[in-house]
Amino acid sequence: MSDQRTLDLDDVDDLALGAVVLGTGGGGDPYVAKIMLREAIEKHGPITLVNAEDLDPDGLILPVAMVGAPTVIVEKFPNGHEAHTVLRAMEQQRGARGIAVMPIEVGGMNTLFPIAVAAELGLPCVDADGMRRAFPQIEMTLLTLAGISASPMTLSDVKGNYVYFEAKDNQTGEKLVRACVAQMGMLAVMSAYPITAKQCAQHAVNGSLSYCLEIGRRVRAIQEGGPDAYQELLDFCEAQILFTGKILDIERRTTAGWARGTVTLEHLSDPARAMRVEIQNENLVAFEDGEAIATVPDLITLIDVETGVPMTTEGLSFGQRLHVIAMPAHPRWITPDGLALAGPRAFGYDIDYAPLGGAS
Amino acid sequence: MSDQRTLDLDDVDDLALGAVVLGTGGGGDPYVAKIMLREAIEKHGPITLVNAEDLDPDGLILPVAMVGAPTVIVEKFPNGHEAHTVLRAMEQQRGARGIAVMPIEVGGMNTLFPIAVAAELGLPCVDADGMRRAFPQIEMTLLTLAGISASPMTLSDVKGNYVYFEAKDNQTGEKLVRACVAQMGMLAVMSAYPITAKQCAQHAVNGSLSYCLEIGRRVRAIQEGGPDAYQELLDFCEAQILFTGKILDIERRTTAGWARGTVTLEHLSDPARAMRVEIQNENLVAFEDGEAIATVPDLITLIDVETGVPMTTEGLSFGQRLHVIAMPAHPRWITPDGLALAGPRAFGYDIDYAPLGGAS
Repeated sequence: MSDQRTLDLDDVDDLALGAVVLGTGGGGDPYVAKIMLREAIEKHGPITLVNAEDLDPDGLILPVAMVGAPTVIVEKFPNGHEAHTVLRAMEQQRGARGIAVMPIEVGGMNTLFPIAVAAELGLPCVDADGMRRAFPQIEMTLLTLAGISASPMTLSDVKGNYVYFEAKDNQTGEKLVRACVAQMGMLAVMSAYPITAKQCAQHAVNGSLSYCLEIGRRVRAIQEGGPDAYQELLDFCEAQILFTGKILDIERRTTAGWARGTVTLEHLSDPARAMRVEIQNENLVAFEDGEAIATVPDLITLIDVETGVPMTTEGLSFGQRLHVIAMPAHPRWITPDGLALAGPRAFGYDIDYAPLGGAS
Repeated sequence: MSDQRTLDLDDVDDLALGAVVLGTGGGGDPYVAKIMLREAIEKHGPITLVNAEDLDPDGLILPVAMVGAPTVIVEKFPNGHEAHTVLRAMEQQRGARGIAVMPIEVGGMNTLFPIAVAAELGLPCVDADGMRRAFPQIEMTLLTLAGISASPMTLSDVKGNYVYFEAKDNQTGEKLVRACVAQMGMLAVMSAYPITAKQCAQHAVNGSLSYCLEIGRRVRAIQEGGPDAYQELLDFCEAQILFTGKILDIERRTTAGWARGTVTLEHLSDPARAMRVEIQNENLVAFEDGEAIATVPDLITLIDVETGVPMTTEGLSFGQRLHVIAMPAHPRWITPDGLALAGPRAFGYDIDYAPLGGAS
C-alpha cells in the first residue's frame, strides 16, 4: 500500500481472514460481508483508506456497525438503507457532513461492513477502530476509556424502523440499543461514537485495518504452505501458540442473548494435557489444569491445524485439530480501567487477568 | 364547569376516582399522581381544559404518558424533567410549539399526570384522550384505528436518558418503547401520537376528561351515601352491576411484563353463583359458569361494596365484598378493527367479544 492507500478486490479475502483472527471466535463469519464488500468495490471502485491524522481535525467521522446475532446477520443481511439512515441521521444531529466512515470493531464481519458502507457513500474509510479486536458490547471500546460518549447513537433495521439514543453513559447505551435490536429481529445497523478526526487520531486504535489486513496476509501464507508462515504470523502479532490439540467436547448454550460455550481440547502430542476455552460470543479464557493461562482482553484465536483456517465459534466441530493462539490486546486494554471494562470479571469470571507468558 | 372550564384543587379527588373506574383495575393507583397534580395546581393555578375543536386546527397537541410498571411508578415518580424533555423534543421534531397537552389514556395515573404536566408547562389540557379507558399497550388507541402513527415517539427517564423512535407501525413502536423502558428501571415518560388539534377533534375521544370527572363525582356520591348514587353512576355510564360477591381467591403472577391474575368471587346472596375475573394489568374478562359475560374492550370495574372505593388490582384482598360493574367501551371500539386491536383475542383469550346484555 502506498501512502494514498486503497482497498481493492485483492484485499477482500485477506481482510476477512484477519477479521476472523481478530474476532477471536465471535463477530460472525465475514462470508456474507465479503460478498457485500466485493459487490461494493465492483460497483464503486477501490475504497480509499485514510489516517485520521491526515484528515481535517474538526471533520466528522462516522462509525458504523451491525448489531445483533451473528447467525441472524448471516441470514438477513442489511440491504444498505439502514447504514444510509443511521449515518444521515448522525450527520443531521451533528450538523455536519461526515468526512470518513470508521469501523467500531475490527473483528468479524464488522470489519468489512463499514468499508462497504464507505464505498456506497463515496467516502474514505479511516484506518482505525475502537478496540483492535471484537467485543460483544458497545461500551467496550478504547473510546469509552478515553471518556468519549457513545451517544448520540442511531439505529435502523431492514424494515425502516429508526431509533435515536442519548444515553447518560455507554453501558446504558449498550442496554438500550440491545433491547431494541431484540425487537428488530436481532439485526440492525448502528452508528455511535460520533467523533472528530482529531479525537479519532488521539483515542481510537489507529492502523487497525492495516493490522487486520497484514494478519490476513500472513494467515493466507500459512494456508498456502509457506515454510515459516506460522512463525511470521506469531512474530507479527507478538503471539504464541498456547496449545495444539483436538476437540474432545463442545458445549454450546444460548443464555441471555449470549452464545456461550466451552470447548475442551486434548493435546495432540501429550494426551495428559487438556485445555478448556470458555466462550461468550468470543473466546474469553483459556484454562489448562484449571489455571487461566490466557484471558480477555488478550485475544484467543483457534486456527485449524490442517487447513490454516481461523475458526469462528459456530464452525468448530468434534475431533477438529486446532492451534490455540494467544495474542496480546492493544496495550491500552492492559490497564486498570481497561481491565475493569473488558477483563475477565467484566464477563462474570471470578478470575484476574492473566498476563501472557513466554511462548510455550 | 363553564365553557371556559378549569380544573382546580376541588376536582383532583373526583378525577382520581373516575380514573380508577376507567382504569379497570390497571393503570396504577393515582395516589401519587394526585399529590403531583395538587402541587402543580398550588404552584401554577387551575389548569384550563379545552376542546380540541376550539383550538387552532393546525396547532400541535402534545400527548404525554408515563410508561412502565405501575408499582414502580408509585415508588419512583417522575421528577418533571422527563416530561419537559420528551415534549420539547417532540416540538423540535415537529418544528412547532405545542398548544395543549393531552392524556393518551384516561384511566389510572395517566389521567392526572398529563394535567400536572400541562400546569408545569403553562399550557391548557385538551379534554380528550386516545381510548376513554386504560390499556396496557401504546398501540391500543382509537388513533391507531384512525390510521394515525404513534411515531415519532420520545422517551426519557429520571436519569436523563433519552430515546427517539420512528417505528413503521404502532405495534412495533410499542415493542421498542417497552424494551427500552425495561432498561430504564421500568419507569419512563413518553410522548407519542403528535397530532394537530384538527386530528384530535376528529379521531381522539373528545370529552373524556369531563367524562372521567363526572364518573368520579358520582362515585364520591356513592361514598357519601347518597340514596340513588349507584343508580346515577350506572345510568351515567350506561353500566350494569354484573355480580356482587366476596373474594374467595386471588391468584397473582407476573409474566412477560404483565401483572396477570385471576379473582374468584362468590355471590353474596346466592353462594351457588361464582364469578371469575381475568386480569392482565386491567380486568379483561368476567366469566360466570365458564361463560364470558363481559370482555375487553368493555370496562370491568370492581367497587368495594362497603366503602364505594373503586379498586386497583393491587388493592384487592381476600374476603373483600365487591360489585363487579361492566360499562360499555367507546362505540368505536366495538367494531371489527377495534375488536381486532383490543378485543379478547388481542390479549390471548380464545373467546369472542361478548356484548354486554341487559342489567342483571
